[in-house]
Amino acid sequence: MTGPATAKLTFTEAKTLSATELRKRIRVGEWTTETVGLGLGQMQANLAIVPLEDAFDFMRFCQRNPKPCPLITVTDPGDPTSPFFAADADIRTDLPRYKVFVNGEAVGSPYDIVEHWQSDSVAFLLGCSLTFEDALLQAGVPLRHLEHDRKIPVYVSNIQCTPAGKFAGPMVVSLRGVPGHLVSKAAQITSRYPWGHGGPVHVGDPAALGITDLDDVAFGEPPVLEPGDVPMFWGCGITPQLAAERAKPRYMITHYPEHMLISDRRSEEDAVC
Amino acid sequence: MTGPATAKLTFTEAKTLSATELRKRIRVGEWTTETVGLGLGQMQANLAIVPLEDAFDFMRFCQRNPKPCPLITVTDPGDPTSPFFAADADIRTDLPRYKVFVNGEAVGSPYDIVEHWQSDSVAFLLGCSLTFEDALLQAGVPLRHLEHDRKIPVYVSNIQCTPAGKFAGPMVVSLRGVPGHLVSKAAQITSRYPWGHGGPVHVGDPAALGITDLDDVAFGEPPVLEPGDVPMFWGCGITPQLAAERAKPRYMITHYPEHMLISDRRSEEDAVC
Repeated sequence: MTGPATAKLTFTEAKTLSATELRKRIRVGEWTTETVGLGLGQMQANLAIVPLEDAFDFMRFCQRNPKPCPLITVTDPGDPTSPFFAADADIRTDLPRYKVFVNGEAVGSPYDIVEHWQSDSVAFLLGCSLTFEDALLQAGVPLRHLEHDRKIPVYVSNIQCTPAGKFAGPMVVSLRGVPGHLVSKAAQITSRYPWGHGGPVHVGDPAALGITDLDDVAFGEPPVLEPGDVPMFWGCGITPQLAAERAKPRYMITHYPEHMLISDRRSEEDAVC
Repeated sequence: MTGPATAKLTFTEAKTLSATELRKRIRVGEWTTETVGLGLGQMQANLAIVPLEDAFDFMRFCQRNPKPCPLITVTDPGDPTSPFFAADADIRTDLPRYKVFVNGEAVGSPYDIVEHWQSDSVAFLLGCSLTFEDALLQAGVPLRHLEHDRKIPVYVSNIQCTPAGKFAGPMVVSLRGVPGHLVSKAAQITSRYPWGHGGPVHVGDPAALGITDLDDVAFGEPPVLEPGDVPMFWGCGITPQLAAERAKPRYMITHYPEHMLISDRRSEEDAVC
């Protein structure tokens, strides 16, 4: 197992590296923290690994709930590679950090999962919001959580996901406050990236999602809303993790929050219209 | 088993019916032919049923090849309903006609599959090109095969699908000749319907797809190309059928060509941008 790095990369250096080079440095333990801000323009993916016995149910769960669980690709059982997503990547080593669950209980946060990967392991690569946040910034839509250096506010909504087999649960949503005249633009832009959660699932009153206090976040940090900001809610990648934790698969491995797999694919390659 | 209908609907009557009413008439055997031209504006789906043992592989095959195999939804094992696609539909009776295969061999073309459906049956509903053809016509893009009352020309291309488990094979493509000044419009419009095969997989020289003689169709009828028409090729729903026939699952059931399941969903509900 690669430990926390000895020869660490600085963020300034890391920002300049290609996806291939970044994965190589991550693989040898030179980068063990968040991937936010790295490989700009490249797609990044959330990870969920479940045993084969649960994989078909989990795949149907993701396919039925594409806003929170955008399914980029699913590996063949026992094969820790995804040539589609990243030519030379090894899913066991190429994320900076992981979380391991056994029967629904968190048991560790290792820097690789070589010892945890099994012959029946199936890896799901799910889209994340980094894709569309980059596009929003480019289009001049302000992102308050970045302006105020906070984590994105995340809530458990009252929307129930469409279940599949043992997987079920509420849709987790992230909030961004957007000035009224930019709401339409933000909806249009994010809709271009189905693999980045696509368009918002709700715009306007948080109460419609069962959220009564915006400061009472389930994950992340409370929002900063400027006067005139309209709450916009997008499906969040914590949704499938929550469903999987409730379903208590025999084992499950996920990315450590914000420690994602960086793709060879550019987000624009898979944008629509 | 419902036989060929005794009290048949006429096409003129059928055209006026809602999706719900159409499925009801199909269920009792009053409509046993093609669904083309019915339920205009409603989504229609191709069907592929495989046993659970092959379902996860087949689902990955479709997910990896979304142009020819647009995955609308997948049923739970043994459950012949899909509330997402059509609230009251029973997949065993609500298509006008089916094809049944055993170990890759065609064994019958029944009007319902009540006796063939099993407790391990998993149904895949895959998008079809009726969705985008309707949109093309509305936008003023001529469809030569309709103008000349021919079946759409279909070829087996030299593009290899991304395999998954036992499922592999070439991408089957359909051809439409489009006047040069409308090629861009046709690409834009069809891209709006990922569940209707999305945008074209190739525009221009058929030889790039390994097609040397446009009159030598694998399915359908030879094309009529007007002077100035540019060949546009889209992924075709015969692709997954071909892959499944080659994989020889223990059993497989598909829709009979052009005898599809009509949805409660309107194509526009799931259009992008």
